[in-house]
Amino acid sequence: MMKFTFASIEAPTLLLDEQVARANIHRMAEKARRFRLSFRPHFKTHQSAVIGEWFKREGVGQITVSSVEMAEYFADNGWQDILIAFSLNVRQIERIDALAKRVHLGVLVENIEAVRALAALEGPRVDVWLKIDIGAHRTGLDWRELQSGAEICRAVKANPDRMFLRGLLTHSGHTYEAHSKAEILALFAETLTRLQSLKRELDALGIGPLEISVGDTPGCTLAEDFAGANEIRPGNFVFYDVHQLSLGVCGFREIAVAVACPVVAVHSEREEVVIYGGAVHLSKETIAWNGDMTYGLVALPQGEGWSEPVQDAYVARVSQEHGILHYPLAAMERNPLRVGDLALVIPAHSCLAVQALGQYQTLGGVKIRTLLKPYAQA
Amino acid sequence: MMKFTFASIEAPTLLLDEQVARANIHRMAEKARRFRLSFRPHFKTHQSAVIGEWFKREGVGQITVSSVEMAEYFADNGWQDILIAFSLNVRQIERIDALAKRVHLGVLVENIEAVRALAALEGPRVDVWLKIDIGAHRTGLDWRELQSGAEICRAVKANPDRMFLRGLLTHSGHTYEAHSKAEILALFAETLTRLQSLKRELDALGIGPLEISVGDTPGCTLAEDFAGANEIRPGNFVFYDVHQLSLGVCGFREIAVAVACPVVAVHSEREEVVIYGGAVHLSKETIAWNGDMTYGLVALPQGEGWSEPVQDAYVARVSQEHGILHYPLAAMERNPLRVGDLALVIPAHSCLAVQALGQYQTLGGVKIRTLLKPYAQA
Repeated sequence: MMKFTFASIEAPTLLLDEQVARANIHRMAEKARRFRLSFRPHFKTHQSAVIGEWFKREGVGQITVSSVEMAEYFADNGWQDILIAFSLNVRQIERIDALAKRVHLGVLVENIEAVRALAALEGPRVDVWLKIDIGAHRTGLDWRELQSGAEICRAVKANPDRMFLRGLLTHSGHTYEAHSKAEILALFAETLTRLQSLKRELDALGIGPLEISVGDTPGCTLAEDFAGANEIRPGNFVFYDVHQLSLGVCGFREIAVAVACPVVAVHSEREEVVIYGGAVHLSKETIAWNGDMTYGLVALPQGEGWSEPVQDAYVARVSQEHGILHYPLAAMERNPLRVGDLALVIPAHSCLAVQALGQYQTLGGVKIRTLLKPYAQA
Repeated sequence: MMKFTFASIEAPTLLLDEQVARANIHRMAEKARRFRLSFRPHFKTHQSAVIGEWFKREGVGQITVSSVEMAEYFADNGWQDILIAFSLNVRQIERIDALAKRVHLGVLVENIEAVRALAALEGPRVDVWLKIDIGAHRTGLDWRELQSGAEICRAVKANPDRMFLRGLLTHSGHTYEAHSKAEILALFAETLTRLQSLKRELDALGIGPLEISVGDTPGCTLAEDFAGANEIRPGNFVFYDVHQLSLGVCGFREIAVAVACPVVAVHSEREEVVIYGGAVHLSKETIAWNGDMTYGLVALPQGEGWSEPVQDAYVARVSQEHGILHYPLAAMERNPLRVGDLALVIPAHSCLAVQALGQYQTLGGVKIRTLLKPYAQA
């Protein structure tokens, strides 16, 4: 293992502070233990077998993924209890069947078509969760749709050799749109209240027992009341990012990733710095920060890690390969950036930066591969 | 080769209509010949050695790329004349030097630091283009900065063994912000006027002869006057996309790519359809279409290709793996979409959809790999 040096970086590189990530994992695992919750972290954020091992060290044995391909990858890497937290894609039913023969598999359904497709499977029984929309309006059955919910649950229970009805599952994605910690906590409490209400109504119809599984990083990080929940499935907390920082969910020093980007031009007259690092490295995800839409904040190399964010600097625009930093003259005076220097972009959304770059360079000198780039690259 | 069928698609898949792409290539190559322009297409859009061969058939021998890695990939695939159209990243100077030993290489400079880095090279001479900002304000030296331009040019000419000063190059990226064909044409004409003005001023200082190279797909597609230009470098035209369609640059039937996405849920009550196909497949690029911001339009399988766009339907939201189609009741009546069907998303920006998906499935039944996924995938 070579010691990591900033001098070794030629092109946009996803830096990972392993200590910070491990501490984030430890903290969430501890919290789950404290609240006696089943902890099934979402691995779509890191997508790496190596980082998966850090979770195993914390006693994690069950995971969440967002695609069949990701489930196959983690099954190949020894994981035996995997939930595919994506409303069942009936076109992949044969691969799902094959997976169920290898691992204890969970899937989500939100309509009767999905249950029918599962009923046609030949493999072992799968766990089935009813995906509930408690207000995020992305996927899932509306939490007030008791009759449809009951119909789907009964269809699941009518196929006991093929399916086991685990319970109700939601992703409160709308906490990401919140504007304060109080609002996140209120949405999280509302989520649990609504799921419990539906659970009681289904119980009254003789459908149960049902577990409750919830997922979002903002809620799971901030909440101190998980009444009614059996399982949590946060993912982003392993790295956090500027979005979570803007919500007050994490501190800057809990963010575990930064994209190191070479400076290729300095345009002081328009207070801009051009970096090699664009949409294909950072993604086009933006977040509001101090009133500006930004693709990320800007830190600088400091010792063997990165500095606090440079005040008033941010990634203002990106094209395919270029990023344009807004870099005010005052910032340039305090923290000069020159051609050939590195700007360390703290991404708006770490999941999508990982997706874009596909491999990590830890500050400890290790290159970590992922599902996305399983082969060594030059 | 297996005949392509829509039934074979399980997960988000980048479909490519080879005939349309080849016709797009032919048309642009013909236009370059007609105007006696050097044609150096930008390969960042397709990133594929196989598709590169379609250009060779049209007599193309010189190409543009946006990264050193892409230059290496196309050099490995037999291309001998490559321009890296990205302001020189001095941290990659050794790889650039190694490339210059293998191919006729061109690079862009916009500051004296880049020239100094090139002067330190040991390899063969590289072509150097001065990158000019004619108003897009992304990269490049402002076209009015005669003194700085002259200084950089002189520094290039002071190292004749290492560098050959080719000329002035720009990417008129601001044509993408235009609102009409007339505005695109006006911006394109202005680009040429400004470059010629700078060229004349540099000539008067004894710096020359200089060529002029321009690049954007909107301008190169629509313009019928290239006075002063020596070379064109469009890239997106090979596939076009909804952005180009919205600008009036192409017709719908000139768009060569669509992302096939399985339908996983239908929520008629909110006029939405959920597809397997999100930010990691389509990117987060949006474009205004009929007053709505969209990630893409929606077509349906039709024969061995795709239909016209479904009226009033579009990709309204994306998360990591999900896309949410706005799909009005009237559309649902005319063109029902059910769980397990395919929606064919015509992407807002084809370059980024290619980047996200990394391989093509042609309607003729061929799987085409790229730099991004050079290895066969399951």
